[in-house]
Amino acid sequence: MDITAHMHQLGRQARAASRAMARADTATRNRALALIAAAIERDADSLRAANQKDLETAQAAGLAPALMDRLALSDSAIATMVAGLRQIATLPDPVGEISNMKVRPSGIQVGQMRVPLGVIGIIYEARPNVTVDAAGLCIKSGNAAILRGGSEAIHCNRALATLVAEGLAGAGLPQDAVQVVDTVDRAAVGAMITMPEYVDVIVPRGGKGLIARLMKESTVPMIKHLDGICHVYIDDKADVEKALAVAFNAKCHRYGTCNTMETLLVARGIAPTVLPRLAALYATQEVELRADPEAREILAGYPHLAAATEEDWTTEYLAPILAVKVVADMDEAIDHITAYSSKHTEAIITEDYTRAMRFLREVDSASVMVNASTRFADGFEYGLGAEIGISNDKLHARGPVGLEGLTSLKYVVFGHGEVRQ
Amino acid sequence: MDITAHMHQLGRQARAASRAMARADTATRNRALALIAAAIERDADSLRAANQKDLETAQAAGLAPALMDRLALSDSAIATMVAGLRQIATLPDPVGEISNMKVRPSGIQVGQMRVPLGVIGIIYEARPNVTVDAAGLCIKSGNAAILRGGSEAIHCNRALATLVAEGLAGAGLPQDAVQVVDTVDRAAVGAMITMPEYVDVIVPRGGKGLIARLMKESTVPMIKHLDGICHVYIDDKADVEKALAVAFNAKCHRYGTCNTMETLLVARGIAPTVLPRLAALYATQEVELRADPEAREILAGYPHLAAATEEDWTTEYLAPILAVKVVADMDEAIDHITAYSSKHTEAIITEDYTRAMRFLREVDSASVMVNASTRFADGFEYGLGAEIGISNDKLHARGPVGLEGLTSLKYVVFGHGEVRQ
Repeated sequence: MDITAHMHQLGRQARAASRAMARADTATRNRALALIAAAIERDADSLRAANQKDLETAQAAGLAPALMDRLALSDSAIATMVAGLRQIATLPDPVGEISNMKVRPSGIQVGQMRVPLGVIGIIYEARPNVTVDAAGLCIKSGNAAILRGGSEAIHCNRALATLVAEGLAGAGLPQDAVQVVDTVDRAAVGAMITMPEYVDVIVPRGGKGLIARLMKESTVPMIKHLDGICHVYIDDKADVEKALAVAFNAKCHRYGTCNTMETLLVARGIAPTVLPRLAALYATQEVELRADPEAREILAGYPHLAAATEEDWTTEYLAPILAVKVVADMDEAIDHITAYSSKHTEAIITEDYTRAMRFLREVDSASVMVNASTRFADGFEYGLGAEIGISNDKLHARGPVGLEGLTSLKYVVFGHGEVRQ
Repeated sequence: MDITAHMHQLGRQARAASRAMARADTATRNRALALIAAAIERDADSLRAANQKDLETAQAAGLAPALMDRLALSDSAIATMVAGLRQIATLPDPVGEISNMKVRPSGIQVGQMRVPLGVIGIIYEARPNVTVDAAGLCIKSGNAAILRGGSEAIHCNRALATLVAEGLAGAGLPQDAVQVVDTVDRAAVGAMITMPEYVDVIVPRGGKGLIARLMKESTVPMIKHLDGICHVYIDDKADVEKALAVAFNAKCHRYGTCNTMETLLVARGIAPTVLPRLAALYATQEVELRADPEAREILAGYPHLAAATEEDWTTEYLAPILAVKVVADMDEAIDHITAYSSKHTEAIITEDYTRAMRFLREVDSASVMVNASTRFADGFEYGLGAEIGISNDKLHARGPVGLEGLTSLKYVVFGHGEVRQ
């Protein structure tokens, strides 16, 4: 098979389908979501069988346990996929909404209409649930999608693709509105990211290596999710109880998520008060603390203490490890964040109004928080209903990307025969 | 000089300056704009002298008259630049505005704060006025800028750079907030578009050739302005007087602009009524009509009539030439637009409500209009106050890009010690 020609074929089909999707009314798109959910429920057994085939191949190939875990489609994972589709159906339709309507001196009325982006290409790891989540979000937002999941999930993704197509057809929508790339050939990705005539945006979900490669090669704009090196800064005007609660939650609620705190910065004036009490909390979870010399002095005797190296300030541990640094004040904290953060999520703990406002304004990250855990940086917690990823980019969408991030605004002009003078 | 090293140096300086710009308050940024305007007024003579040097070199090199025209800095061009800066100063400050604030079930409040993009790289032709307009928009929106104008304007741009730096310094802002690339070496562009660590977005203003090259080579996201192949569709339910006024204005108000109509589509049912009367208007301006066979029959006898070829549907004439086609109905018009438009601006002339709404929704262009001239697709006419360009892109900003297009939204969370459960 000529992979490039095949991908161009998918692209042409997606482009044609995207026009029908953009025209489809809200009820039709919601009906497709409901039909897909019902089909997945009905065929849960055969989905599990397809997944079992993938798992056996992956096991034989020696896939890492964490990746096996993501590949597995349990009963509860299937139930979550189905519930997710039904929840997306209940969200307000972003498409067609007109905002910022103004009457201009010329007599024309100008506003902005929210419209689908067109064709979304999603490149992701071997996680079958992403296939369904991404299909759901793209259908709801009136887009067509080309989905390229990890090759280890190919049997399961094929089975899911059939059910998605069935749901689309049942609602009278083109089956090509969601196409799953049915080849394990890696050249498919190379073709997908270099056909801007057919794909309007690429959403890569995967490791830093994948994204670095795509950034170099892609001629299609991307909504990228890079790493989360998130900071909490405990100011010397912090409420100590809030500081303890947030700093413990931000690290220990879940270790493997991108909005988990990886570096804790503590103001010199409050470090002797707050660090020993925090250490007592972290000790219960055996969190390793990699601290700078000043913090190490205060933490002396902590059972899992190590010296922080320069590398620690740029490491996303995704593990019970935390980098700790004592800083003079908020300015030094902001400087550290500016130098080392991945611009994902940062929080300040303070009771000082002016510092809170300055931190919100001056820290250049997708999410900036006062007195709240970084773990809240999430589409569901923010009320977006669902998310296709979390963007570290500055253009278009920053932070959790929901339905709105899969749309753009075009100008609409209501005239009465006006001409330009 | 090692151009790459030099550009990286500019990049580092711009990045540092961008932080000071993001923190600067509204009054300080407006003061810089006022000081630059005053400095340009004061030094108008020496600016004209620098421009004279550029003009002489360009003339000796045989620059085309149209380009000489753009390069020239007349008294009125200087006055317009100065007025533009003062007008930008009066626009509302987009930076820091918080919108969409919601209280979430967890107790946190989430909203979005408008923030500068950071560092904007602008690549443009030998038009000294763009140097000042771009500097003004970037300063107002709290960004730093690296400006790379056409080499023919180098003396004038140098002189302007000095005045911009003087104004920035006078307001207490870093002079590196606006840097003009002071070399005619074309490698500067290559370096600028491949340093995403220092430049957040590239705004290319120039011909299709430049933009095609940048699209291939740039690793920095772009806000692109491609060509304007704009359509007016006269529906058979059109008000004939409105149709005549709009179709004449859209073609003849100015020929060289990107929002000028290049193709006219007329519904079969109204073509015999409207085309002869339109031809009488176009005849006064000696507009050449390149028509399909059906339109040619109706227009028989028109003195500047030619047969349209396939190429005419994709040509941006920027001249008194118009492609004309008779279509069966709105669906055929939309199909033609979908196939040939550059997604800039399209208009329908109709009194039919449902068709008007369908056209607005289904035509996938940056500006879509009902009963108004395509010539209104412009930042000033839309009330943006000023524009850095008109985007044909779908991501981030579509259509005229004003101050808002030079900013993005980050999430801000106001908490009270909340942790994730």
